[in-house]
Amino acid sequence: MYVAIMGYGVVGSGVATLLKKNHEHIVKKSMQSEMELKYILDRRTFPGDPYEHLLITDFSKIVEDDEVKIVVETMGGLHPAYEYVLASLKAGKNVVTSNKELVAAKGCELLKVADENNVNFLFEASVGGGIPIIRPISQCLAANDIDEIAGILNGTTNFILTKMITDGMTFDEALLLAQKNGYAERDPSADVDGFDACRKICILAALCFGKHVYPDAVYTEGIRKITLADVEYARSWGGVIKLIARAKKMEDGRVSVMVSPAFVQNHSQLASVDDVFNAILVRGDAIGDVVFYGKGAGKMPTASAVVADVIDCARHMERKKFFGWQDSEDGYVADYLETENTFYIRATTENAAAAVAQFSEFFGDISLLARQDAPEGEFAFVTKPLSEKEIAEKLALVKEANVESVIRITNY
Amino acid sequence: MYVAIMGYGVVGSGVATLLKKNHEHIVKKSMQSEMELKYILDRRTFPGDPYEHLLITDFSKIVEDDEVKIVVETMGGLHPAYEYVLASLKAGKNVVTSNKELVAAKGCELLKVADENNVNFLFEASVGGGIPIIRPISQCLAANDIDEIAGILNGTTNFILTKMITDGMTFDEALLLAQKNGYAERDPSADVDGFDACRKICILAALCFGKHVYPDAVYTEGIRKITLADVEYARSWGGVIKLIARAKKMEDGRVSVMVSPAFVQNHSQLASVDDVFNAILVRGDAIGDVVFYGKGAGKMPTASAVVADVIDCARHMERKKFFGWQDSEDGYVADYLETENTFYIRATTENAAAAVAQFSEFFGDISLLARQDAPEGEFAFVTKPLSEKEIAEKLALVKEANVESVIRITNY
Repeated sequence: MYVAIMGYGVVGSGVATLLKKNHEHIVKKSMQSEMELKYILDRRTFPGDPYEHLLITDFSKIVEDDEVKIVVETMGGLHPAYEYVLASLKAGKNVVTSNKELVAAKGCELLKVADENNVNFLFEASVGGGIPIIRPISQCLAANDIDEIAGILNGTTNFILTKMITDGMTFDEALLLAQKNGYAERDPSADVDGFDACRKICILAALCFGKHVYPDAVYTEGIRKITLADVEYARSWGGVIKLIARAKKMEDGRVSVMVSPAFVQNHSQLASVDDVFNAILVRGDAIGDVVFYGKGAGKMPTASAVVADVIDCARHMERKKFFGWQDSEDGYVADYLETENTFYIRATTENAAAAVAQFSEFFGDISLLARQDAPEGEFAFVTKPLSEKEIAEKLALVKEANVESVIRITNY
Repeated sequence: MYVAIMGYGVVGSGVATLLKKNHEHIVKKSMQSEMELKYILDRRTFPGDPYEHLLITDFSKIVEDDEVKIVVETMGGLHPAYEYVLASLKAGKNVVTSNKELVAAKGCELLKVADENNVNFLFEASVGGGIPIIRPISQCLAANDIDEIAGILNGTTNFILTKMITDGMTFDEALLLAQKNGYAERDPSADVDGFDACRKICILAALCFGKHVYPDAVYTEGIRKITLADVEYARSWGGVIKLIARAKKMEDGRVSVMVSPAFVQNHSQLASVDDVFNAILVRGDAIGDVVFYGKGAGKMPTASAVVADVIDCARHMERKKFFGWQDSEDGYVADYLETENTFYIRATTENAAAAVAQFSEFFGDISLLARQDAPEGEFAFVTKPLSEKEIAEKLALVKEANVESVIRITNY
């Protein structure tokens, strides 16, 4: 059994390392007599690398080699990953990917092509790094009607928020530290603006609810605007601020999907997920809440998920995995303005009495929060459940105060 | 595709309910045209039950009916569950069980018989109720060398400990409440003395390390001796007391397996597992720590795991699951006296100075703990790492104090 790796970066080299390190164990689990790496595709050169002799730059070598039964795609990005994966599947090769951008954009199509060519397209590593989540959803929770899925799906933002919560760093300080530690890119937008978490929740929603969720249909809000004042109010409320990605089935068959910072109660299993760790909560009708926790990124955890898929491919050469993932029609993802939430609102004013009176007029009974050393004229409160549309309309009418922060509150 | 259920108690009736409730979804996931319940075996009668017409008392009806392809065993206990499962497998039927006693005692043998008869023997529901754990270990973490597995595997004891920690109830009060709520049996021994957790860690250890672990080789200590004083000292140390079942690979190929109460640090993912919830931590070489959390018992969560296995059987009629679970030789489980641990010790004395001096003589530097309202003459401390043998020998020599509690400290 021969394997090719496309993309010799952090994850790809982790896969090569792991295939060697746990070689005997992996061959046995694969129920094969042998499992060998044949090619590594990368445009770069790696002088002195132990796998230097396997490096190639020409994709056609892989696609034309009938001995290669499993192709690992760890290049990232949409192009040329999409073209290479498509060609590999059409050439009758199983494909394993860690590329969430590819799966979120093209998962449905690629699964269809895999099906037509009687091969597997597996992507456990695309969500939650090494945390087992794709297979548990599609197999272990198969007897459940899944109602909702939510998670902390981005390690970089979770690291930043943890530093703000536990060390009192500002967002900018924590981002700098994350960059220094190699957790954040020089351009951190994909992480801090929520796009990475968005792609992952799209994949999870497709698996849980059976239809493709396109990232551009999902309301996505990052953590740049979170301040230490908000962190303090969350604490006094009895919780922490996390970047939560969530998807929920609606009664009419559509889904509500959203990525945003949110208050999470201290006793929630999601509250104690710190640093670069990830956690995913699945709410099923029979099982109730189940949570999966672990390292959501990193070389070896992600490689571990890729290799588990490689083993699965090797053991299921004659059988396809069934994900029940179909394309979706326009309007399948509900407009986020329809979503109902409870909100935390922080505002500043020069006339506290008038401001609180105005908010009470708009929102009815509000629960005021307190924090130590709050500057004069600052106040914060929690609303009753409201639709996103209502809150936007009401806040637009506020004249007696400047609204500084609006953060959603979860019930996980 | 016809299914039979053996044992129409809590879990068995949950399976019947779920097969009906999510019928369409389950048939689709099973890739079958139909999935129908044909028999329910139970000695009792259930007048008016919706499945009364399916009830039988004669096992031979099931084993002799070639249309029954999947047998669900939810009887519990070793006999006659073992004989019925064995006969079903030998008759070429797939078997799904939630019976941890059966799997812990006979798992290796039954998997071998299943293998010989080219059918599946699946047991996801035997550990952690509805929490997906068996399949993730055997598939998703397949690329890892697993070093250690630990968990809160018994909901009853976790409920009791939670009530002691959060509500200040004594063990006896909390046990009474657990019995009143239906979480504990009238004879609570299987739960509170750790036997239930022991069976589950045996199953997990076999899956992680590949060899059968027999429950009677495992040091098992329950929670009857835990007092509110210990709970307070754990709090002042920065943690909580949980009943922890754990198994660890030793360098010489043997395993160390133990069930006992233990201090768990507050920041651990296991510390916030409250009430009847369970959590399982797996430590792999590539993945690091992964934690699975959810309802460890209960009718519908457990039924959900059983039905997931039924679906898996239906989809893999031609293929067997491979667990790599072999029998073990004598001495495979190391004598617990070889295990090294850090210990919390609570003692009372009439001569505090002499007692502390004596403990310091035996244990070197000890870290004293404090609690509010400690009675005169009580003190508590934490030792350095010591083998179980050493601690037992040293404590036997203590003359200046009565040792009231000895509780292990974990590093999860």
